[in-house]
Amino acid sequence: MTYCVAMHLADGLVFISDSRTNAGIDQISTFAKLFVFSLPGERLIVLQTAGNLATSQSVVNLLRQRTQGPGPHLLNVDTLYDATVLVADTLREVVSRDRCKLTAGIDLTSSFIVGGQIAGSPMAIYNVYAQGNFFQATTDTPFLQLGESKYGRPILDRNLTYQTPLDEALRCGLISFDSTIRSNLSVGMPLDMLVYHKDSLEAPARQRITSDDAYYVQIRRQWSDGLKRLLAELPAPPYS
Amino acid sequence: MTYCVAMHLADGLVFISDSRTNAGIDQISTFAKLFVFSLPGERLIVLQTAGNLATSQSVVNLLRQRTQGPGPHLLNVDTLYDATVLVADTLREVVSRDRCKLTAGIDLTSSFIVGGQIAGSPMAIYNVYAQGNFFQATTDTPFLQLGESKYGRPILDRNLTYQTPLDEALRCGLISFDSTIRSNLSVGMPLDMLVYHKDSLEAPARQRITSDDAYYVQIRRQWSDGLKRLLAELPAPPYS
Repeated sequence: MTYCVAMHLADGLVFISDSRTNAGIDQISTFAKLFVFSLPGERLIVLQTAGNLATSQSVVNLLRQRTQGPGPHLLNVDTLYDATVLVADTLREVVSRDRCKLTAGIDLTSSFIVGGQIAGSPMAIYNVYAQGNFFQATTDTPFLQLGESKYGRPILDRNLTYQTPLDEALRCGLISFDSTIRSNLSVGMPLDMLVYHKDSLEAPARQRITSDDAYYVQIRRQWSDGLKRLLAELPAPPYS
Repeated sequence: MTYCVAMHLADGLVFISDSRTNAGIDQISTFAKLFVFSLPGERLIVLQTAGNLATSQSVVNLLRQRTQGPGPHLLNVDTLYDATVLVADTLREVVSRDRCKLTAGIDLTSSFIVGGQIAGSPMAIYNVYAQGNFFQATTDTPFLQLGESKYGRPILDRNLTYQTPLDEALRCGLISFDSTIRSNLSVGMPLDMLVYHKDSLEAPARQRITSDDAYYVQIRRQWSDGLKRLLAELPAPPYS
């Protein structure tokens, strides 16, 4: 499984992905699920992915390879909408290519988040379903999730709005990951993370957060202690 | 869907169930999912259920009816283990009875939590799978969940241990329900709740908590405000 979150906020975009892949519980590996396509000063496109690793990697590899070719690709399409159509088309192409008798009964599907900004257009994040159709996050629902989304959803539902500042949104996202990782073995450290500032059109460095990252360790502990305190401060139930 | 939690703690047992049933999103009703079988001073057995409503109700009705008959039933078996075998047998019986051409393709399965205490034996809670086999909560993992369990699981994983006092466990459980209800429409108020004190062998009143219950409203707000504060107090991320 996988857990990815993308947020579209007034001030920018936040992307966080875990890096655990598993084929059965005895075959666990670390693979990045966050990929960046950028032309500094002109565009930043971030892909996050969940699902079949072979399919996800092929889609990203084809998208990367084709940026050297003459056709439409992620570094020359005019809008993020068109970039998302490209991702969806490539996803369908890979699944069609690999679907054969040998893969019968295997789930080849992957899903993607595509987000970023291209000069002259607003920021956007899209959720591409395994079938290739897609929808966009809005100011009403400013975040998207892929994969094992339920454990970490309440903290986002409770606290994240379109107006949430980037720093606070990132903290909220990291807590969402901590809650998921504590409760589900199929989501694991390290995390890959990218924070994009609106209209900067620069690709900030992708950060990798390991389980002994000092900041992550600190907020995990502070959050955990804080929750215990909050719970202890709740008034005693009046029910006999 | 449904959400039920049962806790087996040093001081007693806590049971909480939601009451929403739905057959499609346009057919939503309120049905209790928590049932009590008791002989004051001698035994308390609590059933919680998730899954097909017709199956769940039939199982409970048959178990209830049979307490008037001569055979083994929930009010005369010697141990909670035997009570759980009865529930499992009755579950298999109902599913076998109702399985026919007309119900082909319909999921008739239900799952159950069976918990309580019978004089002379320790308390226990069991989780009965839809297939009728079952397992017991232990001091290592002192809670069981049925149904839509993921949203409300982190707060239990983080805070609940076998030594948690009953009052605190109940608060923790109610917050787990609040998180679930906020994020998932298929789980809904009112909640049914029962707190059993170890060795009392008395059936405490089943409490019904409605969405305007003063205590529930208060802890929801206090929790929500507290989380916002905790999040705001986390240090700013050092990542650029």
